[in-house]
Order: sequence, then C-alpha cells, then structure tokens
Amino acid sequence: MKQARLFTPGPTAVPAEVLETQAQPLIHHRTQAFRDALAGVMRDLQYVMRTKNPVVVLTASGSGAMEAVVVNLTARGEKVIVTELGKFSERWREIAQAYGVEVVSVKAEWGTPVMPDQVEEAFRRNSDAKVLFTTHSETSTGVLQDVAAFAQIAHQHKALIVVDGITSIGCHDVDTDGWGLDAMVGGSQKGMMIPPGLAFVSLSDAAVARMGSPRHGVYYFDLLKAVRSAEKSDTPYTPAISLVLALARALEMIRDEGLESVIARHTANAGAVRAAVSAMGLELLASVPSNATTAVVPPEGAAGEITRMMEHEHDVKIAGGQATLKGRIVRLGHIGHYNAGDMKTMITAFEAVCRELGIVEATGPGVKALDAFYRTGA
Amino acid sequence: MKQARLFTPGPTAVPAEVLETQAQPLIHHRTQAFRDALAGVMRDLQYVMRTKNPVVVLTASGSGAMEAVVVNLTARGEKVIVTELGKFSERWREIAQAYGVEVVSVKAEWGTPVMPDQVEEAFRRNSDAKVLFTTHSETSTGVLQDVAAFAQIAHQHKALIVVDGITSIGCHDVDTDGWGLDAMVGGSQKGMMIPPGLAFVSLSDAAVARMGSPRHGVYYFDLLKAVRSAEKSDTPYTPAISLVLALARALEMIRDEGLESVIARHTANAGAVRAAVSAMGLELLASVPSNATTAVVPPEGAAGEITRMMEHEHDVKIAGGQATLKGRIVRLGHIGHYNAGDMKTMITAFEAVCRELGIVEATGPGVKALDAFYRTGA
Repeated sequence: MKQARLFTPGPTAVPAEVLETQAQPLIHHRTQAFRDALAGVMRDLQYVMRTKNPVVVLTASGSGAMEAVVVNLTARGEKVIVTELGKFSERWREIAQAYGVEVVSVKAEWGTPVMPDQVEEAFRRNSDAKVLFTTHSETSTGVLQDVAAFAQIAHQHKALIVVDGITSIGCHDVDTDGWGLDAMVGGSQKGMMIPPGLAFVSLSDAAVARMGSPRHGVYYFDLLKAVRSAEKSDTPYTPAISLVLALARALEMIRDEGLESVIARHTANAGAVRAAVSAMGLELLASVPSNATTAVVPPEGAAGEITRMMEHEHDVKIAGGQATLKGRIVRLGHIGHYNAGDMKTMITAFEAVCRELGIVEATGPGVKALDAFYRTGA
Repeated sequence: MKQARLFTPGPTAVPAEVLETQAQPLIHHRTQAFRDALAGVMRDLQYVMRTKNPVVVLTASGSGAMEAVVVNLTARGEKVIVTELGKFSERWREIAQAYGVEVVSVKAEWGTPVMPDQVEEAFRRNSDAKVLFTTHSETSTGVLQDVAAFAQIAHQHKALIVVDGITSIGCHDVDTDGWGLDAMVGGSQKGMMIPPGLAFVSLSDAAVARMGSPRHGVYYFDLLKAVRSAEKSDTPYTPAISLVLALARALEMIRDEGLESVIARHTANAGAVRAAVSAMGLELLASVPSNATTAVVPPEGAAGEITRMMEHEHDVKIAGGQATLKGRIVRLGHIGHYNAGDMKTMITAFEAVCRELGIVEATGPGVKALDAFYRTGA
C-alpha cells in the first residue's frame, strides 16, 4: 500500500541503509557479533550526547526510559521539581505522581520555555527538592529550553538534573558532560533515524550513586542492573536485537557525516522552514524554536484539514497538535534524515494546501524564502 | 559477516517473508494503516491463544510483560503462589519480591514440572493467596507444565492464574479460555517468529476487574490503560511500529498454515529431535518435554564445547544451560519457523560434533531415528 512520507517529529523517515539492515537474518544476542554491535552503539551514543557517562539501551519507548529514571532516582514522598511547557514535559509530573513523588511544577505557556529564574525561584522555595526533571526540546510545541542554565541552578541547590532529550539528541548540540546533566534520555525514532522501540539513558556518577538501593519496586527498568550489564556489553533482558543493529548502522551514518555537520544540517533545515512559514505570513508558535519541529498556528479551524490534505493529497505526513493544542497547530517535522530537497517537498505541499484552503493567496513565497535561507542563511 | 543459523529457544530464525516487511519504509502509528495492522495483530493473537479476552501488545521483552502483570494484579504485602522449576519460572518470584509481594514457592527439581497436588497443597496452606504465577513451558529446562490443572485449582481457591506462555504460545495448544487463564504472557521472538522487542498479554474479565486502582506505582506498564487503548486499536505509548508490522506478517503465515498444523509441525519436530537424541544414547533432561526446546545432558564437561563447535564449525547456533545448568546441558531449539529439513541440519551437525568429541562412536543413528520419526511418528 502507498504510504505518505514521514515529516513528523517522530517517528521520522528511516534511511534506506538502515532499512536494509532490518532485512538481514536475525543473530542471537549472546554472541560476540551482537556484543560488539551493542558496545559500538553505546560508544557512538556517547559521541552524539557528548558524554563519558555510561549510556544504557532499553527496549521500550521513550516514556519507558523516562519512567526508568524516575523510579531509579526518586523515593515516595520525596520532592522534585518539573518544568511544564507542553504534553511531554507534563509527563515527568504524571510519572512522578504515579510513584507518590511530590512534584513542584514550574510552568510556561505552551509555546514558550520555562525561564531559568523560574527554576531558581522554585529551588529557593523548595530547598528539599532532590531532582529537577526537565525537557530540552518539547516535542508538542517545538520549544527549546536552556537546560545548561537549569543544570547550573540544580547543582547549586545540590539537586540532580534529568533531561528529556528525546527530540534534541542528534539535532542540537547536547553537551551532556559540559552542562553536567545527570541523566539524559533519548529515543530511537527521532534524531537516531530508526523505528521506535529503543530508548537510552546516560547516567552520571552522581546518578548511579543514588541508585544503590531502589526506593520503589523496580525490575525491568532497574538502571543499576542495566549499567552493570552495559559494562559487559550486555543487557539484563533480551534486547530488541534488530533495532540495536539498526541503531548501530544509523550511528555509523552520523559518525560518517560528523556530529557538527548533522547539527548544522538540522539548524539549516529548521531555519529554512521557519523562514518559509514566516514568508507565507503564518504565525510560528515557539518563542524559542527547537530544530526538531516547527509548530505553525494556522487560522482557526484549518489545522485538521491541512494535515489531512498534506497526507492524502500530497503523501506528506506531518503532525497536528496534541492535548490543548489539538486542532490548533500543525507541526512540520525536520528531525532526522532530511536535506534541503526534503524540506522543499514539505513546504511545496504545505504552500499548495494553504493556497487551496485560501490561507495564502498564492504559492511561491514559502519555497522562495526556503531557497533563500539555504543560500544566504537568513 | 557470516552468522550461524539460529536453533535457539528464542530468538529464533525469522522467516524471509517477515524480514522483508522490515525493509519497507516506516509508517506512522497514528494512521489508519497502522491501526488496521495492530487490530489484526490483536485479533490473530486471540486466534493463536484461543481467547476472546483482549490481548494487549507491549514494547518490551517478555520480562517486561511479566512485570506488567505482577504490578497490575498484586499489592504490596499480598500473598501469591509461584511454581519454580527453572530460571524463567523463578523470575515470577524475583519480580513479585521486588514489589514487596509475599511469595509462596512451590518447587520442582530442574527438569521436572511442579505437580498439581503440590499446587493444591500450597493453596490449602495459604488460603489467602490471591494469584498463582506459573509457567507453561520452562525455557531453561524444556519442561511443560499442566497449567490446565493448575487453573482449576487456582479458581477453586478463588485465586487468579497468570501463565508465562512465552515459549508455549504458537508451539503448543494454548486453550486460554477453555482452561480459564486470567493472564497469558507471550513474547515476539519465539513461536511468533519475529525479532525480540514485543510482548503481549491476554487479560480475562476477572484480571481487568482487579486492575481498577493500581496498588503499586505504574506508568509505562499500566495494563488497564493498554486495554482501553487496545479497544481503539491504539497503544498508550509509541509502539515498536516495525515489529508490529512484522508480527502482522508472521501471524498471517500462521493463519495460512493453520494453528493446528503449526502445532502438529512443532510436535513432530520436537518428537523427532528427542528420538534422534535418544538413538544417540544421550540423556534427555525433561521428564515432561515442551515442544519449544530439547534439553540434552551430555557427558560432564562437554556441553560448552558442543555449543561452541556447533556454532563455529557448523554455523548452527544452539543454546547452552543457564544458572545452575550452565555448562551441564545443551538446548536444541525447535520453536518457530522450522521444518523436518531444518531439524536434520541441526541433528546432522550435533551428531558430527558428538562424534568428534568422542561422545558417540559413529554418526548416523541420530539422523536415522529422526527420519524414522517423521515417517512413522515414533
């Protein structure tokens, strides 16, 4: 069956080179070949996340990895601070509350980031807060947060900082060690360009030290066991072998391209898409935009029809809004294996649909601005 | 790189038809095409597990699904009964204890099943036990248990029965509804013939009724949420899309072959392998053997060398023993997409290696008995 191409903020399009690995006969995970592949994956994830900390790979979606960090780093009744600025950052609170952890929420309007002084204020009022759970790129709004500043504040207050980097890893500079992030969570179907099913977490010495005796019931998501297994290039439970091998190939592609080039490509794609949308006279949602996705606020009532027509008439699958933004925004995705030509495909379809719906008067300005941005960087 | 063919009790060899699906461009999970595929998977799993109960699909290994059932069906301090007869059945105890659940263990020597009267006795002494956690096919020893009898006993004592069917589903008759199993747990890389990364659980009305208010912290493994999502052909969190599509294809193959034929093929393969091993004069470990794997007890000290030579000199990857059976047994796998020719490949290599190690005097009797079994059924 004919399927639309993916331009969503995850799952994103999987490169042909990676798909090819998925058609290879399966190998067993208790073999040197698999251990070598897993060791390579963990080493290359350290490269992408700029860390010397161990990075453990979990067979789960990103939400599973978020839960793993909460379960391993908190205790019932303990206080933590969460920044909330969209659907995925709210998940930190939901998970913590599911485990009886007391949550202090620091909120920003959806479309804007939480400001460092808000975090500072929250710590000042809650000096007993043990962990800050925050979000680098909020996928539901396309907003980027200053987690480097947050990390400084958390550490000044003797707290750990845990970051959801699910849609920032591989498309932004993520300086895990330079910023001092105690746990950084990533997922497979975003910047890592493979299908969903794997997630990964980097853990600082301070984070590992806190995991000595689990304070909640934990088994599958026992990160201390995962760290100990990782030291032997192993996993505590049978991993999603084919996805690990896909990730090995995808990371090889990132290494070949070079991390700086990968990030520069994402920065260019994101900038070009924003330039196109602005040239079309449409409103951008994010005050501080992420390289993962561009959230656009079309005239009221048009969002659903735009995504539908993009998918069914142009074979371009973009995402709509979630939760309170459902039906109010569209999200143009550019995290993953995309180049200028792909962005032109997406914007050409977007302009055509907006023209057909009477949202813009003519096609052309968007694509023209996109081209100009790639040429001149503005 | 050249890799040995898999003859392990999971992961098992993935059919070419399934591998092919993995090389297709990825689709998004919020599409009708994916919802249709997931609905088909859940329906076909009901067919394979012979149940009208909902079957939810989790992105996790089988251990994750086991934990999900424990977390959703027990409370801290509550009493449960566990049958222990090998490494994987012990896992039920480990998980329950990780959650502060009181475990009454009913044990059998590794290589034998727990007897129904032992379970009856345990319930008589522990009338407050709420759930029996048990195992249909114990993968570490290749032993099959009489879970139909266990179910009767559990229900007489007003307890639920939860079964690990990870290496029985798709290779044994699993009459989930006929036997009254309240939860049946399966994994993807066994009888379902796809790579690891998915697990699934069927849940009876009584099981669902117990999940109303979670008694442990739970988020990713919230089975009530999973059941509610399944009603809308959806999952609470991003599923391993490519593996779900693989499972859809594999289940189509099972439907095409017919469940009875699939089980008969496994019964024949398992019987033929046992006949071959016996004809070679080697000892079988399991007193009641499963169709998933045949555990063989070679002369002391030989197991490691047998598995090594099978893999490196014959490209046939079999499994060794685990935990207390490490280095003491080898496990010849026949769960999954195997036919008589495959079994001959495995036994031919096995006989050759045993001959080379001086364990048997000549090659021939094993393969001859294998052939005879397929011809005469004995």
